[in-house]
Amino acid sequence: MKLSQLGEFDLIDKIRRAAPKDRNVRLGIGDDAAWVTSPSASILVTADLLLEGVHFNLKWTSLFDLGYKSLAVNLSDTAAMGGVPAYAVVSLGIPAHFRVEQIDEFYRGMNRLARSSRVSLVGGDTSAAKSLLISVALLGHAPHRPIARHGAKIGDDIYVTGTLGDAALALKLLKSNSPALRHPAAAFLLKRHHRPMARCRAGLLLARQKLAAAMIDVSDGLLQDLGHLCSASRIGAVLWEENLPLSRAYHMLAGKDGSRWALSGGEDYELLFCARPARRAAIQAVARRAGVPITRIGSCVAKEQGITILDAIGETVRPPARGHDHFGGPIVGRSK
Amino acid sequence: MKLSQLGEFDLIDKIRRAAPKDRNVRLGIGDDAAWVTSPSASILVTADLLLEGVHFNLKWTSLFDLGYKSLAVNLSDTAAMGGVPAYAVVSLGIPAHFRVEQIDEFYRGMNRLARSSRVSLVGGDTSAAKSLLISVALLGHAPHRPIARHGAKIGDDIYVTGTLGDAALALKLLKSNSPALRHPAAAFLLKRHHRPMARCRAGLLLARQKLAAAMIDVSDGLLQDLGHLCSASRIGAVLWEENLPLSRAYHMLAGKDGSRWALSGGEDYELLFCARPARRAAIQAVARRAGVPITRIGSCVAKEQGITILDAIGETVRPPARGHDHFGGPIVGRSK
Repeated sequence: MKLSQLGEFDLIDKIRRAAPKDRNVRLGIGDDAAWVTSPSASILVTADLLLEGVHFNLKWTSLFDLGYKSLAVNLSDTAAMGGVPAYAVVSLGIPAHFRVEQIDEFYRGMNRLARSSRVSLVGGDTSAAKSLLISVALLGHAPHRPIARHGAKIGDDIYVTGTLGDAALALKLLKSNSPALRHPAAAFLLKRHHRPMARCRAGLLLARQKLAAAMIDVSDGLLQDLGHLCSASRIGAVLWEENLPLSRAYHMLAGKDGSRWALSGGEDYELLFCARPARRAAIQAVARRAGVPITRIGSCVAKEQGITILDAIGETVRPPARGHDHFGGPIVGRSK
Repeated sequence: MKLSQLGEFDLIDKIRRAAPKDRNVRLGIGDDAAWVTSPSASILVTADLLLEGVHFNLKWTSLFDLGYKSLAVNLSDTAAMGGVPAYAVVSLGIPAHFRVEQIDEFYRGMNRLARSSRVSLVGGDTSAAKSLLISVALLGHAPHRPIARHGAKIGDDIYVTGTLGDAALALKLLKSNSPALRHPAAAFLLKRHHRPMARCRAGLLLARQKLAAAMIDVSDGLLQDLGHLCSASRIGAVLWEENLPLSRAYHMLAGKDGSRWALSGGEDYELLFCARPARRAAIQAVARRAGVPITRIGSCVAKEQGITILDAIGETVRPPARGHDHFGGPIVGRSK
C-alpha cells in the first residue's frame, strides 16, 4: 500500500499499536508529548542521525536491519555511559515512493531490538522527505555514576570489548561488491555491520563496580574515538597492534588491509575504556559475566606522547587515516 | 569559513561552548550521552523534525529564526501537556555549501529562546546532508499531572489561547511574494510565523489548577487538531465562527480568505483545550496571569455530531480543507 493511501495519521496509529512499551510509559505515542516515569533522578540522553546516502545504502541494507541498527547505535551510546536504555523517540523522513510495508519492516527491526533490550518506543515525528532519514533520541537512566570520557590517568590500561574492524571490512566488501561476500566468513562480518550488538551489560557492570575510569563507544573508528577519550582525559596512549582483537572472519578476509579497519574503520559499537592496572582480574570477571571478550590493547601515557601504535617487535606503526569526519574536516594529527 | 575547514568535531566544540545549560546538567554536549538530573519522576518527551523544502524555505526564513522556531515548536508540545521544558537534543544535517557563520546564526536563534525558557542544550548529532534538516527532541518534567488529548466530555467548553491564522496567512503572503508584505500589519504576521510563542506559562497554570480536561497544541490547523482531540476524547464539537480569535493584522490582510487560515492554516502553536463550564472564571484568571487571551470558541457535543462550525446567524459553515498531511493522505472527513 502506498503511504499516500494510508496518510500520516493512520501511519502514526499503526506505529503506535506495534510499539513496545512497559508500565513506566504513562502516555506513549499519540499525544503532544510522551509521559514516562524515571526510576532514577539521573537521566541519560543521546541522539543519532542516520541519513540515506551518508550513513546507509538501501542497495545492501534491509529496512529491518536499518530499524534494528538505528536503535542499536543509540543503545551503544547509553552503554558507553554505563547506563540502562529506557525510552526511544524516533523521527522519520520518508520519500514519497516508499510503501507502508517498508515502514512496517523498519519498525519490525527496531521493535525486535527494543523488546530484547526493554526499551519502550514512546514518540517521534514523521514527514515526507527526499531521501530516507532517521533521527533517534534515546533516554536512559543511570543507576550508577555515569562513566564519562574524561577520567583516565597515565598508567591506566586500555581495553576494548568484542572484536574490531568487522563492520568496516563488511562495508568495504559491500561497496566493491567483492567476490569475498560469498565466502562463508562474510556472513559473520555482514551481521556485525547490519546488527551491531550494543554492549549494555558490560557497560552497566563496569559502572556498577566502578571499574572504568573513562569510557567511549567505538563508532568512528578506534583511533578517532581513542583520540576523543585521550583529549577529554588529557592523556596520550600506546596501542599494541598485535593485541587488537580481530575475529576469525576478519583474519580470513582482511587480506593485505591488515589491521587497517580495526584501527580506523568505524561502526564497531564496542566499548573502549581505561582502568587502573589493579582492576585486571575484576575486568575479566565482567567479561565472563557479560559474555563478551574484553581485551587489554594498550596503556595510557603522557599527553605529549600523543597516540602511538607499536607492532610485535616494538616498532612504531604508521597509523592509517583516522575515522570519519562528516564535513571532510582535518582529522589526522588534530590536537583536540 | 567553510564547514570543511572547521571539521565536524570543532563544530561540535563550538556548539558546546555556546550551549545554555544549568546546574542540573551534569554532563552536556561532548560525551556519548548527556547526563542530566530530573527534579521530578514524571518526564515528558517530544520530538519534531523540520526539513528544508517541506517545513521551511530559506528564501524567506533566516537561520536565526529557524533555530528559534525549531525549539519553539517543541516547547509548544510540552506546554500542551502542562509541563516545564528542560533539556533539548538537536541533530542537524547540513549541506556542504553551508558556512560556519550560518550554523552559528542558527544556534544564536535557538540559544536565545533556550535561555529565555530555561532550557539547556545537552546533545545531538551532526552530519552532512543534501538539504538542511533539523531534528529536535525535548525533555521536560511534569510537576502536575500532564494533560492528555483524551478527557474532554460532552458539555465542556472549548478554548484557544492567543489568535489563530496569523502564521498561515503570513506564509501565504510569503509564498506569493504579495505586495501586502509591505503593509505595516504584515510585520506582526511575519513575527507570528517566524517566532512562535509557545504558551508554556498558560499550559502550566492550567495543569496546576486542573482546569483543562484535555489539551493539544494547534500546529496542524485548528480543525485538524480539534479533530485529534475529539477523536481521543470520543466527542464531537461545535465551533462558533465569530468567536474565533483573530488578530487586527489578520483582519486587515486576510481579505476574502475570511476565517480560512484560522480554521485550517497551521503553525499557530496556540493551546486548544476543553474545560467544564464551572471553570470559566478560573480560566480567565489564568489568561490574566499568563498574559495571553484565552477565548471560548465552542462546545463539546456527542461524537456522532462530528465537528460543526456555526456562523453568526447559526448557519453551518462549510469547513475549508483541514490542515496538513505529510503523505498527502485523506484528511477531510476522516473518522479517526
